[in-house]
Amino acid sequence: GLNSSEVDKLYQDDAVWIITSSFIIFTMHSGFGLLESGSVSAKDEVNIMVKNVVDVVFGGIAYWSFGYGLSYGNDWYPNSFVGMGKFFYDPARQNLATVNEEGWAYASFLFQMSLATTASTIVSGAVAERAKLKSYILLGCLVILVQALPAHWVWDKNGFFFKMGVVDFAGCSAVHMVGGIIGLVATIYLKPRRNRFNEDSVHQMSSPTNALLGTFLLWWGWFGINAGSVWGITEGRWRLGGRAAVATIMSSIGGGATSIVISFVRTKKLQVNFLINGILSSIVSITALCAVSRPWHALIIGSVSSAFSIAVLPVLDRFKVDDPVGIVPIHLTSSIWGMFAVGIFAEEDKHLMATGGQYGLLYGGGFKLMGIQMLCAATILVYSAVCGFLILVLISKSPLGLRVTDYEEQIGADVIEHGLAGTNIARYLVEKPLSTKT
Amino acid sequence: GLNSSEVDKLYQDDAVWIITSSFIIFTMHSGFGLLESGSVSAKDEVNIMVKNVVDVVFGGIAYWSFGYGLSYGNDWYPNSFVGMGKFFYDPARQNLATVNEEGWAYASFLFQMSLATTASTIVSGAVAERAKLKSYILLGCLVILVQALPAHWVWDKNGFFFKMGVVDFAGCSAVHMVGGIIGLVATIYLKPRRNRFNEDSVHQMSSPTNALLGTFLLWWGWFGINAGSVWGITEGRWRLGGRAAVATIMSSIGGGATSIVISFVRTKKLQVNFLINGILSSIVSITALCAVSRPWHALIIGSVSSAFSIAVLPVLDRFKVDDPVGIVPIHLTSSIWGMFAVGIFAEEDKHLMATGGQYGLLYGGGFKLMGIQMLCAATILVYSAVCGFLILVLISKSPLGLRVTDYEEQIGADVIEHGLAGTNIARYLVEKPLSTKT
Amino acid sequence: GLNSSEVDKLYQDDAVWIITSSFIIFTMHSGFGLLESGSVSAKDEVNIMVKNVVDVVFGGIAYWSFGYGLSYGNDWYPNSFVGMGKFFYDPARQNLATVNEEGWAYASFLFQMSLATTASTIVSGAVAERAKLKSYILLGCLVILVQALPAHWVWDKNGFFFKMGVVDFAGCSAVHMVGGIIGLVATIYLKPRRNRFNEDSVHQMSSPTNALLGTFLLWWGWFGINAGSVWGITEGRWRLGGRAAVATIMSSIGGGATSIVISFVRTKKLQVNFLINGILSSIVSITALCAVSRPWHALIIGSVSSAFSIAVLPVLDRFKVDDPVGIVPIHLTSSIWGMFAVGIFAEEDKHLMATGGQYGLLYGGGFKLMGIQMLCAATILVYSAVCGFLILVLISKSPLGLRVTDYEEQIGADVIEHGLAGTNIARYLVEKPLSTKT
Repeated sequence: GLNSSEVDKLYQDDAVWIITSSFIIFTMHSGFGLLESGSVSAKDEVNIMVKNVVDVVFGGIAYWSFGYGLSYGNDWYPNSFVGMGKFFYDPARQNLATVNEEGWAYASFLFQMSLATTASTIVSGAVAERAKLKSYILLGCLVILVQALPAHWVWDKNGFFFKMGVVDFAGCSAVHMVGGIIGLVATIYLKPRRNRFNEDSVHQMSSPTNALLGTFLLWWGWFGINAGSVWGITEGRWRLGGRAAVATIMSSIGGGATSIVISFVRTKKLQVNFLINGILSSIVSITALCAVSRPWHALIIGSVSSAFSIAVLPVLDRFKVDDPVGIVPIHLTSSIWGMFAVGIFAEEDKHLMATGGQYGLLYGGGFKLMGIQMLCAATILVYSAVCGFLILVLISKSPLGLRVTDYEEQIGADVIEHGLAGTNIARYLVEKPLSTKT
Repeated sequence: GLNSSEVDKLYQDDAVWIITSSFIIFTMHSGFGLLESGSVSAKDEVNIMVKNVVDVVFGGIAYWSFGYGLSYGNDWYPNSFVGMGKFFYDPARQNLATVNEEGWAYASFLFQMSLATTASTIVSGAVAERAKLKSYILLGCLVILVQALPAHWVWDKNGFFFKMGVVDFAGCSAVHMVGGIIGLVATIYLKPRRNRFNEDSVHQMSSPTNALLGTFLLWWGWFGINAGSVWGITEGRWRLGGRAAVATIMSSIGGGATSIVISFVRTKKLQVNFLINGILSSIVSITALCAVSRPWHALIIGSVSSAFSIAVLPVLDRFKVDDPVGIVPIHLTSSIWGMFAVGIFAEEDKHLMATGGQYGLLYGGGFKLMGIQMLCAATILVYSAVCGFLILVLISKSPLGLRVTDYEEQIGADVIEHGLAGTNIARYLVEKPLSTKT
Repeated sequence: GLNSSEVDKLYQDDAVWIITSSFIIFTMHSGFGLLESGSVSAKDEVNIMVKNVVDVVFGGIAYWSFGYGLSYGNDWYPNSFVGMGKFFYDPARQNLATVNEEGWAYASFLFQMSLATTASTIVSGAVAERAKLKSYILLGCLVILVQALPAHWVWDKNGFFFKMGVVDFAGCSAVHMVGGIIGLVATIYLKPRRNRFNEDSVHQMSSPTNALLGTFLLWWGWFGINAGSVWGITEGRWRLGGRAAVATIMSSIGGGATSIVISFVRTKKLQVNFLINGILSSIVSITALCAVSRPWHALIIGSVSSAFSIAVLPVLDRFKVDDPVGIVPIHLTSSIWGMFAVGIFAEEDKHLMATGGQYGLLYGGGFKLMGIQMLCAATILVYSAVCGFLILVLISKSPLGLRVTDYEEQIGADVIEHGLAGTNIARYLVEKPLSTKT
């Protein structure tokens, strides 16, 4: 057995890893904010940044008060479906046996909160330029609570997909699929931005430079999610963290290269939105398998995800689904493919039980793991879509309402919601006559 | 006793923590720069970024040559008031007994420098759009030296507040209060920007998007200050680091939510400056107590700080104090409240002596700790205000002068100090007719 | 001897250091992107951001498939000139003896890739506004392969400069000198931008604010390179990491201060490009010696490098070399001086063999180390210049071509390559009449 100072040391080293990973993950809000504000029209640029702030603020309150408990509170009636307990979380109230456990409780909460607040952020992009700010605040809080259950199912030791052996290291299903499908439902429910599908409409990014900078920030921030999701470094888990980081960069370069090639072949130009979708969707697709992925697995998984992210765009256009910042390609098609890819490429670590001893098709594991992955994906998709729809109906029927008026949409949320007039408005006026059809 | 390889390990783990925390803290200069450049008028946007560079450059030289020694140099005549020694710092010259101690000296110096250079940055915002660049350089260097003494009083083992048992983990008094009060004195001394309080003046941010991005960057950077300020991870100190990080995010979400609610109630809109002040002031307010704060302590402390940050704005307007980037709400009211709040909420850690065994009012500690906190705050406020005033008089009476001419202010520092003409000027011309009264 | 759990612990601690350093280094691409996009004309702002994405994407693929093997693959015919093996790298294929070694292989690859992709990024700045995007992609991949050999010579245990005892901790010669000289050759070969040296030309940065923000991001990212390059923290190496970090900040403040003083003396204003060149060139110059540099060494080395970075500007103008984002001052003059400075200031660590027991002129080591440093620099300069030239000839003679047409250059790459029309074009039109001569 380990003596107490050795135990102290294990707690220390693992906690420091997840604390610092949380720090990195929180920086992704800067990335989401810039990506979204750079992708929308100039008249809504500030509003969407504010919505990203709101995701942390009210999302954080929702998570602390109820979300964390719904995911990981096993204090009363532990069960496979929902956590109960740890509401309005205060580790000191838990009467944990040792100071190590209490410290670990703080670290775990921080890490989980950093992940959860990114889920509601995804939805902010889907409803951009059309959702009222107050309604969005309520929507974001409710998304946090919706997301809490899949997190329980997939990651909590009592969760039913966890017990089945589903493999999702870093939130492919429990974060991106939830956010992606709710985003899709929301943007369909809200209907397109005005004139979005008119014959002479233009698709104008307010700042491609900012959108690319946001992409960069998300790219590096994702190391925190993927490497942090091995939950520590001791007993050889640092190896999985290193592999997750290599898989992250390998999938992104596969996805980036694929999107560039497709863009040149199909349009003769390098479309900035193809590139952004390609890179970010590929990173999402590797989140499920990252810790046990070989470099070439990640390269293929990312490349395929990138191809899907571009293939889905004409489908969205065909059905007049307006997806202002690419929620569907970046988070939805990629997360479905990412869960599926585990069923193909999963390979157990040489030393640690990282996939519960399960292998994918390619390594002789048969279809069992694939079945579990697909069952998990289907369940989460249906559950999240239904919850999302109910929430949207609820908010739109409430006195708050959901969608801004036509007049407000034309003027823009920066003026309407924040009283800002000035440079952005100036740029919006200038950009309209200069814009070309796409 | 520990054998030498165990001692090596303790040094290693603690030093790595403060080195990496320093890396994070330095990134805050990006945040300060963007927040300030996004908040001022477009004609001074570049100039304020340059001033933030200057804060690191000349502030760093001032700190290396004298500041660090005045804070922590106890080589000659150790005393409670001021450090002497370690000037033009070179650990190799100190003849430290072991290589561990020498390595630790490098790590400590790096961490302290990263903190100290943020103090002078605070003042850069207060004098925005009005101070001459050369004069500002001198001012920044002198602020570093002024700040060195409170750091000695509060954090050095010989400092008199340290000996009294003052609780300030991460610079509430020794950094933010110093910067905030000097900033207030400076902006009063410099007088408002031209037309700032005219009837038809407008308050125009050059880029709310950049200001919000800067806020994001500061938010994540603060994890480095608050978690780093526990000075290591061994012997259970990682637990305090984790608690500090949770307290940081909890105070910020309390502060953010409060400012949003107040803004909606009072103005029907979400004012971007209310939001920025609310979030950043709440993080400042938790710096004193962070390492031993419970989540709900932090939530309350941040919320109250945010309310103060909004309440002070009409007071500043009433007395025609022009505070271009919100130095008073973000750093001054919050740091006074933060020091006070320790007297209410302080609770000793279960295992380590983190508050010297002291408790606040709420935990039966009586008024003793409160008294120490308030004495420390009062002393630092008076000392810093007096020093700041003397420095401002000195510079403005010197051949350098302090305030730019009326003509220079109208043209803007970007042209006058940096010879830049172009996009920013274009935007400035465009934004004027479009601006509305606030 | 160490028991196996002690060995595990050493691997763990060192691997975590280089993994997290890699995370920091990757963030530098955000910095390079912003610095370059802020420095060029508004009509090419997005294009240069895309090129920085491409550097990671295709540079990453080139590095994974061949670059890493050419640098560190000693599987077949180990020799001093070039690595062979580890192509299309997959650590699992290597049949490493222990899981520790396999994990370490992932961590090492990640770190080396993060460094290598910055080398091709340097060239992107040199060819800004003139190179075709597809040609640039090919160029970037080939630069990665060119850079692989110097990395083998300087850092691989079989490399001939490594065996000679050359001191280059963090890529002064093997990264910056390679990128800098190829950049110089490329910009001469491509010829200046149109009207760049006409009598009435203007030098217009699209966004000085973004260029300064990029500088900030690079500044903090460099801690990852310089401190990460000590390859771990165990056995006292953390001390070298701490020293490297202090040296990084000390050299930058020396360089920044020097450039500010020179700028004021020579032009009465603070030129933004002097400041950026001064800071970044000084950090490059300390990369060679960082881990064993004293603070005052770094201050002097950075100051001298900054002076060179400004002195070279009129020389470039004199010979009509158009260097859009300052590749020559930032990466070339500084890296030559940095390698030279090792010969003066090198001093062995008190405990570890960090410089192979060698001392510079100042510490009684004579001219031997200086000779090795200069031989290494000269070899790398000649080799890289020749390779760079051949690659440029090859690409420009190929069907791809290299330089955009005069018409395309006038319209700008944002429209031509990415189909973007809008705000940036608007700004470009506005900025032209407002621009002044410099």
